[in-house]
Amino acid sequence: MSRILFSGMVLLTMANLMQAADVVVPDVVLGIHGGIGVDKKEMTPELEKEVRAGLKSALEAGHAKLKAGGTSLDAVEAAIRIMEDLPAFNAGKGAVFTNAGTNELDASIMEGKSKKAGAMAGVMTVKNPISGARAVMEKSKHVLLIGPGADAFAKKQGLEIVDPSYFATEPRRKAIEEIWKREAEARKQSSTEPGPALPRKKSEYGTVGAVSLDADGNLAAGTSTGGMTNKMAGRVGDSPIIGAGTYADNEAGAISCTGHGEFFIRYAVSHEIVAQMKYRGLSAADAADDVINRQLKNAGGEGAAIVLDRSGRFTAAYNSEGLYRACITRDGKISVRVYEN
Amino acid sequence: MSRILFSGMVLLTMANLMQAADVVVPDVVLGIHGGIGVDKKEMTPELEKEVRAGLKSALEAGHAKLKAGGTSLDAVEAAIRIMEDLPAFNAGKGAVFTNAGTNELDASIMEGKSKKAGAMAGVMTVKNPISGARAVMEKSKHVLLIGPGADAFAKKQGLEIVDPSYFATEPRRKAIEEIWKREAEARKQSSTEPGPALPRKKSEYGTVGAVSLDADGNLAAGTSTGGMTNKMAGRVGDSPIIGAGTYADNEAGAISCTGHGEFFIRYAVSHEIVAQMKYRGLSAADAADDVINRQLKNAGGEGAAIVLDRSGRFTAAYNSEGLYRACITRDGKISVRVYEN
Repeated sequence: MSRILFSGMVLLTMANLMQAADVVVPDVVLGIHGGIGVDKKEMTPELEKEVRAGLKSALEAGHAKLKAGGTSLDAVEAAIRIMEDLPAFNAGKGAVFTNAGTNELDASIMEGKSKKAGAMAGVMTVKNPISGARAVMEKSKHVLLIGPGADAFAKKQGLEIVDPSYFATEPRRKAIEEIWKREAEARKQSSTEPGPALPRKKSEYGTVGAVSLDADGNLAAGTSTGGMTNKMAGRVGDSPIIGAGTYADNEAGAISCTGHGEFFIRYAVSHEIVAQMKYRGLSAADAADDVINRQLKNAGGEGAAIVLDRSGRFTAAYNSEGLYRACITRDGKISVRVYEN
Repeated sequence: MSRILFSGMVLLTMANLMQAADVVVPDVVLGIHGGIGVDKKEMTPELEKEVRAGLKSALEAGHAKLKAGGTSLDAVEAAIRIMEDLPAFNAGKGAVFTNAGTNELDASIMEGKSKKAGAMAGVMTVKNPISGARAVMEKSKHVLLIGPGADAFAKKQGLEIVDPSYFATEPRRKAIEEIWKREAEARKQSSTEPGPALPRKKSEYGTVGAVSLDADGNLAAGTSTGGMTNKMAGRVGDSPIIGAGTYADNEAGAISCTGHGEFFIRYAVSHEIVAQMKYRGLSAADAADDVINRQLKNAGGEGAAIVLDRSGRFTAAYNSEGLYRACITRDGKISVRVYEN
């Protein structure tokens, strides 16, 4: 599929064109990602099949909401709930472990008309953090709740509460134990405090997200994650931060990010993409390309963003080896991509 | 003092000029705010004197750092530490109470050259949260730490740790007890769950912040707060959110915000000001004016931002009755303002 050019930037050079981020799919009502946790060496055919099937289920669940007259918020929430429930993704069940052996979950959601938003960070008992984020948006005066206060709020709102052990899976436990073993070996070889500089595995960076455009022309975006494997207990990345991991603005687009969250916070990535669309007149593809493939790449920040603009054009930008991404058009046509640009 | 115009916007109309936010003070190396907690009816002469003296001490502490060859980060941290230690400000000692009767503190800091940043949210034992935020930036791989994990990190870094009761002061306790009393009365009169719609006092919105430009031309910004009086335990506002309450970018300016934090998160206020400066070519004053006096005002979000641009021009924008703000020039000239535009 050839890239559709729709850019307000006058001085677009051939160099820009050649490193352009991704295909642009028109007429999309729901786009999702399953994180940059992609490494051809690590990926088994079974896991890849599971992930692709999960993406398809998530799209179908969100699309069903839209077909039934639901809003873009409904579609985003439904799609993300599916991925949260599947252990193949690093969100909800199957979240990675912190350095304290806990699973701490973050999520956020935003809608583009009113710019209302909700988020939860560091929750440990909310089965579907994306629904927790939506409850914060719709049932509280606040935008961001953290820790036990957020868990208590979700319970009070009647959301499904689970024992913290619900989120733990065997593959994620093995992954953290392997890291702790490597850290212990590194400590033996060095008298200095072990740094977090051990080589990272791509699979530590998974996150899920969704962007949607409904029949009323309203955009929404959402993101949910377990964060980075072995993150410090209490560490919060970009996923629950409005403007970093998630943003939606009907004047421009809806965005969900994944990757090395600290960089996404510092560069306010999702809001920066919106700002470049609004104030530089860039297309979603060019704005995402500038932020992900120039700004973040220069800073050493690995990651990706998916963008759905207000006309239903879906695109992704990633500076990682790959990105699980998929979208569904108004008439139900699904496309799933991982590596191919 | 007449406003210095330096705007790249071609179509600047007289209407824009007339609602321009504030004077612009040139040659500033450090600017600070003490929140929008300003209500002529509530303000006693004693408290106003205390606040003005506090702002002056904070400026002098930061200026001393710069004169001794320190960085803009050093100046921001020093100025905010002074205000955190003074009970007159809603940050550190004298922080407001949550609905659970606790004091939960948030802070963030960012520097404009590397765009490195650090933040803490929901800490209860770190005497100076702004120093905690700086430690996250400089001594961890993370940007944002929350809750007990953040407290533990600060302790490990050798920062001053206090008993949670250190932050509580008698006036703040009286304020929360008065709110609880009003809530209980409202409950008696109504069978529905008490909403948070009780009339707010301006003094519930205090927050402190600083922006600085050092001799190397590097900008920095920081913000520290106890949040909103009677906030839900676990609620986090814009102060510790990079892009919302705090941002610094050497290409544009350094910003610190105060006000109704939920709106500042949804509009990514500090990053939006930077984006309008970079991509619309607006001056700091015009960018801040657009965000605070148009976008936020239309949305019903009360608050303010101070901005220091890369040329040392300091300005503020506020849609509230007043804003405690002050700045110091390279040669030590101090100006303090509260209401006058």
